[in-house]
Amino acid sequence: MKVVVSVGGSVLAPDLEADRVSQYAAALEALDDEGHELGVVVGGGPTAREYIQTARELGANEIELDEIGIAVTRLNGRLLIAALDERAAPTPSETYEDGREALRRGDIPVLGGTVAAQTTDAVSAAFAEYVNADLLVYATSVPGVFSADPNVDSAAEKYEEMSADELVDLIADLEMNAGSNAPVDLLAAKVIQRAGMRAIVLDGNDPEAVARAIRTGEHDGTDVLPNGHETDPADWTDA
Amino acid sequence: MKVVVSVGGSVLAPDLEADRVSQYAAALEALDDEGHELGVVVGGGPTAREYIQTARELGANEIELDEIGIAVTRLNGRLLIAALDERAAPTPSETYEDGREALRRGDIPVLGGTVAAQTTDAVSAAFAEYVNADLLVYATSVPGVFSADPNVDSAAEKYEEMSADELVDLIADLEMNAGSNAPVDLLAAKVIQRAGMRAIVLDGNDPEAVARAIRTGEHDGTDVLPNGHETDPADWTDA
Amino acid sequence: MKVVVSVGGSVLAPDLEADRVSQYAAALEALDDEGHELGVVVGGGPTAREYIQTARELGANEIELDEIGIAVTRLNGRLLIAALDERAAPTPSETYEDGREALRRGDIPVLGGTVAAQTTDAVSAAFAEYVNADLLVYATSVPGVFSADPNVDSAAEKYEEMSADELVDLIADLEMNAGSNAPVDLLAAKVIQRAGMRAIVLDGNDPEAVARAIRTGEHDGTDVLPNGHETDPADWTDA
Amino acid sequence: MKVVVSVGGSVLAPDLEADRVSQYAAALEALDDEGHELGVVVGGGPTAREYIQTARELGANEIELDEIGIAVTRLNGRLLIAALDERAAPTPSETYEDGREALRRGDIPVLGGTVAAQTTDAVSAAFAEYVNADLLVYATSVPGVFSADPNVDSAAEKYEEMSADELVDLIADLEMNAGSNAPVDLLAAKVIQRAGMRAIVLDGNDPEAVARAIRTGEHDGTDVLPNGHETDPADWTDA
Amino acid sequence: MKVVVSVGGSVLAPDLEADRVSQYAAALEALDDEGHELGVVVGGGPTAREYIQTARELGANEIELDEIGIAVTRLNGRLLIAALDERAAPTPSETYEDGREALRRGDIPVLGGTVAAQTTDAVSAAFAEYVNADLLVYATSVPGVFSADPNVDSAAEKYEEMSADELVDLIADLEMNAGSNAPVDLLAAKVIQRAGMRAIVLDGNDPEAVARAIRTGEHDGTDVLPNGHETDPADWTDA
Amino acid sequence: MKVVVSVGGSVLAPDLEADRVSQYAAALEALDDEGHELGVVVGGGPTAREYIQTARELGANEIELDEIGIAVTRLNGRLLIAALDERAAPTPSETYEDGREALRRGDIPVLGGTVAAQTTDAVSAAFAEYVNADLLVYATSVPGVFSADPNVDSAAEKYEEMSADELVDLIADLEMNAGSNAPVDLLAAKVIQRAGMRAIVLDGNDPEAVARAIRTGEHDGTDVLPNGHETDPADWTDA
Repeated sequence: MKVVVSVGGSVLAPDLEADRVSQYAAALEALDDEGHELGVVVGGGPTAREYIQTARELGANEIELDEIGIAVTRLNGRLLIAALDERAAPTPSETYEDGREALRRGDIPVLGGTVAAQTTDAVSAAFAEYVNADLLVYATSVPGVFSADPNVDSAAEKYEEMSADELVDLIADLEMNAGSNAPVDLLAAKVIQRAGMRAIVLDGNDPEAVARAIRTGEHDGTDVLPNGHETDPADWTDA
Repeated sequence: MKVVVSVGGSVLAPDLEADRVSQYAAALEALDDEGHELGVVVGGGPTAREYIQTARELGANEIELDEIGIAVTRLNGRLLIAALDERAAPTPSETYEDGREALRRGDIPVLGGTVAAQTTDAVSAAFAEYVNADLLVYATSVPGVFSADPNVDSAAEKYEEMSADELVDLIADLEMNAGSNAPVDLLAAKVIQRAGMRAIVLDGNDPEAVARAIRTGEHDGTDVLPNGHETDPADWTDA
Repeated sequence: MKVVVSVGGSVLAPDLEADRVSQYAAALEALDDEGHELGVVVGGGPTAREYIQTARELGANEIELDEIGIAVTRLNGRLLIAALDERAAPTPSETYEDGREALRRGDIPVLGGTVAAQTTDAVSAAFAEYVNADLLVYATSVPGVFSADPNVDSAAEKYEEMSADELVDLIADLEMNAGSNAPVDLLAAKVIQRAGMRAIVLDGNDPEAVARAIRTGEHDGTDVLPNGHETDPADWTDA
Repeated sequence: MKVVVSVGGSVLAPDLEADRVSQYAAALEALDDEGHELGVVVGGGPTAREYIQTARELGANEIELDEIGIAVTRLNGRLLIAALDERAAPTPSETYEDGREALRRGDIPVLGGTVAAQTTDAVSAAFAEYVNADLLVYATSVPGVFSADPNVDSAAEKYEEMSADELVDLIADLEMNAGSNAPVDLLAAKVIQRAGMRAIVLDGNDPEAVARAIRTGEHDGTDVLPNGHETDPADWTDA
Repeated sequence: MKVVVSVGGSVLAPDLEADRVSQYAAALEALDDEGHELGVVVGGGPTAREYIQTARELGANEIELDEIGIAVTRLNGRLLIAALDERAAPTPSETYEDGREALRRGDIPVLGGTVAAQTTDAVSAAFAEYVNADLLVYATSVPGVFSADPNVDSAAEKYEEMSADELVDLIADLEMNAGSNAPVDLLAAKVIQRAGMRAIVLDGNDPEAVARAIRTGEHDGTDVLPNGHETDPADWTDA
Repeated sequence: MKVVVSVGGSVLAPDLEADRVSQYAAALEALDDEGHELGVVVGGGPTAREYIQTARELGANEIELDEIGIAVTRLNGRLLIAALDERAAPTPSETYEDGREALRRGDIPVLGGTVAAQTTDAVSAAFAEYVNADLLVYATSVPGVFSADPNVDSAAEKYEEMSADELVDLIADLEMNAGSNAPVDLLAAKVIQRAGMRAIVLDGNDPEAVARAIRTGEHDGTDVLPNGHETDPADWTDA
């Protein structure tokens, strides 16, 4: 199966320790051994936030801040590449084309951000669409898609399953309410929708659980199904 | 004044004739002579649509289609560059950095699309933000921002003035309703919002009117004002 | 067999319809399945002519016009790449080196123009020479090499077979007479001559016939043979 | 005046000594001080021939040999850049675009070859056309354009003046006769013809004479005039 | 005066706070206003060390670690660029050529590392040599060049002045003793020596003192003088 | 076994003749056939020295001279590539990353210099470290590592075997004495030391002997062993 895994920066390297990165590499290597074709997109996490905050104080505009964030995602990518050793493309892929070429020659491409004003959420979806992936997995710091921001609203429910249309509507709603954190951003949701691609949003703090979701389809997060696939509201459940 | 002008592809070269491109070049040259610093972003228009349709039939995915669209925007950019002669950077700027360097050395940068999954609407806003433009002008095929799609809903009203927040809300609503054409896309609206940048949306079929809007602030389109600026609903008017 | 196929723009996409491109892709895929190593160079066709005419009116010089033409050849290349799907290198090869690397890793490289003042005829010959191709095929809008321009001179005869020296002499003559269209340009003819490479010039409007020429050597066009190969004037025939 | 000077490799650095390069730099600096806008294209000369011969023995094909030649032209360009110091663009321009940008920011661009299957003669003409030069000067190892190869045919006459059409016809004739050396190649002649550009072909062994030709129009070589300019056959003279 | 300033990463952004970066920007802007031509090379500091340590645990080899370090130096460079605003080249210069071009067009280039196995100490010296700088300033975490590592050996003396030869000998000695920290590395010292360039090594924790050293030549660090310049051992003094 | 071979320019092409290059190609092809993974770094040799001398007279600084030297190393690399034909990456690898990608896809990468202020000695060591080579071979113009410069000091002894620490100490000593030629430079020695990599320094004038050293470990040069490996001073012997 061709899978793109989007690993949030704070999930991959919460405090720049090697452990979590090692675990991700081990999980990806096992999937690679089982014959899956893999691409990875990593986020910026705490280092990105730190640099961005300082640069903002120094007068950088938002696009310049995005460029700093992109540079940090690629630094994080280098950590994962070091851990994946010879299986990964030796440097972070800076464009979708580079990533696709790496995938075609049998390497695991590791991407970070690609361009200002586009999050790694969106990069993940676009890259998955570009390589015609069978599955897109968001390994994030929240354990799925919720009806509201679970950090704010204790009544927020986690979806077990939803359609891409439902995802887009939900994210659009969440983004309209300042302060609400959506698990993926609207552009990512729309790309998922237009591509008719299966996606999973789940807790990325357990790399082995991420691998299991890919291997067996079983996980505690949210399945996003292409529109037209039967979805049963009874499948929805509390978090 | 530093101004980024976003010229839709069907507005710049409706049928690939030289006339309209010449008029745009003349209008931009006059502004350049008056001391304005200018950047231009051009869209894809009919040639892009034609190539994209054919490529879609041939099995290209959406990202590949975006890349084709980007290539056409740069072709259109070459037409404008030819007409602007020595005033323009000699080739279309492929990144925000390239465009910014051109601007700094006194050339008029002409950009097209920059990356898949990002429209030239969004590129225009991001580039304007990147170079700290004073004004962003969308010269489009519709004469402003309407409360609904004027081609569909005869009761659609054109806004004379609105805040960036109002723009974001409106576009988000329009995008939720399939078939409704928004004058700029949601990402562009959000960039305008976060940058606190003045923007104008107006009919691009009269290049001289576009220049006049920049020169005098007078136009028949819609002014988008940074949040916090006083906006008077009484200023809203029918189309 | 290693073959470079030069497909004229008006032959590949006469009116930007998908059909012809699909047929070319099918023909190339069959050859690929049979074990041939393939490289393709595509021309500019009607879209190139349209953009070039407009840019010329706008004051572009010939080199700038060439650059516009090159951009369109690569757009056309993207159509063929879309149709060839995973068999083609994912983006048009912009240099001979890129094309050669694609070929070496088992992809079908699709090139357009490479540099100003060099036609895709010449690019095809140079690329064929660079990769040491066994055969170069020009799939053009005329059905072979004629003793004169068949559109002008009803007495023009099609050659069934000729030497590279004869081709160079003929093209040199044709190019001296303004208004005469040569099937390939002089630089291409000279590269064929110096490389000692077999070439075929034939009607490109039937992709299946192009494939058959490669597969069996049988076709209704003109064989250009390396100098020193026996050529029998009796083989020359009327069109 | 905007001038492109094409300096043959064996003229610029006959035996890799610094003297001739210094003289060229001095001549160009004087012209620069007088307000001329200058671009330079340098050839390969003896080092190129030596490497090419060895690479040919080692099995390189003609395109690979061209690439070696290009690399040497750029090495030679670095010598001239060293001598021109701060007036030149700091590295050889590898494309027409790079050269043009250097020219626009006030540097003297130094180009070598740009792409296989295109001589520095042709590069010079194409670059001159691209930047809309007023004059193109070929500083070569022969003192002008002759009716035949003066090394072979003692009856060869040097033209004092000729039209671009006459140049193209002459070169085409010379190229048809193996062993005849044309002072510029056919592609260069055709670009001169289509661009309607003034050109001078003269002995490059005296850099000061090259500068004088640019400064005063007086020289002992051959003037190539755009078609339509009055040319008087009586002006033709023996060498 | 043309000056290259090498700012250690832990000196520029000891804990990624904006203050120190702001102070450096202010000091550089004042020098820029006074007419000095400036280039800056920034180091990696604590973030580099953190990433490198993690990557080493993950199995990266030394060259890969160098690449990670380089990426961090450029991130740090982006902070300084943000603070310098329009005076700096908009992105970190990745090669000596890029930096030199920025300098020539009047921008302040900000470089980080350029290639593996070469420290930013060496980059600073090489860049200074490349642009023919009048002065190279190392703003480091130690207040000058000492006869031994002052953190280890309480008898270490700071040199007020020394020749390039003496610097090379001293650094060579220090590098032979594991654990001894040299203020600049041996390659840097050798480049200073061969270039015959003035250099200053001083405490970088007070940006204003760095500016004063450039402005007046007065400082509490060590002057490194080109060989042949009179140096008086009596000038040597305790730290 | 993964091996990086560093071939000095005067060893590869003493007088630009094809013979020696052919012999090297043959030796490398044999090793390739036997299953070794090979990377090659070539030096500049006499052509580099000639260009550098001329450029120095013309006023180039040391960094510019290094760039000229790098360009020549890549020219020499093209000779070897021509001779290796389809086994080599088609163009010289300009960065460590490029070289590594070539190696991973089964081609023999040929590198020259990569950046100013870094010799091909150092490039060889760094590239070997980057690709985790098992062995690094210096095929030089001296037949091993000597206790002093054998051209100057008749008492100089050749080491049969030494540790990396001993190599670093020796080279540091030699470099301190102007006029003494070290067989590899200090940076190279230090990289060998830190990488814990086996190295051989031997006479490169007999390519077959170089191949034999790789194949069997037997040679007349010097073995450099990682620290910690048992080394017996009794193994040291006269030249």
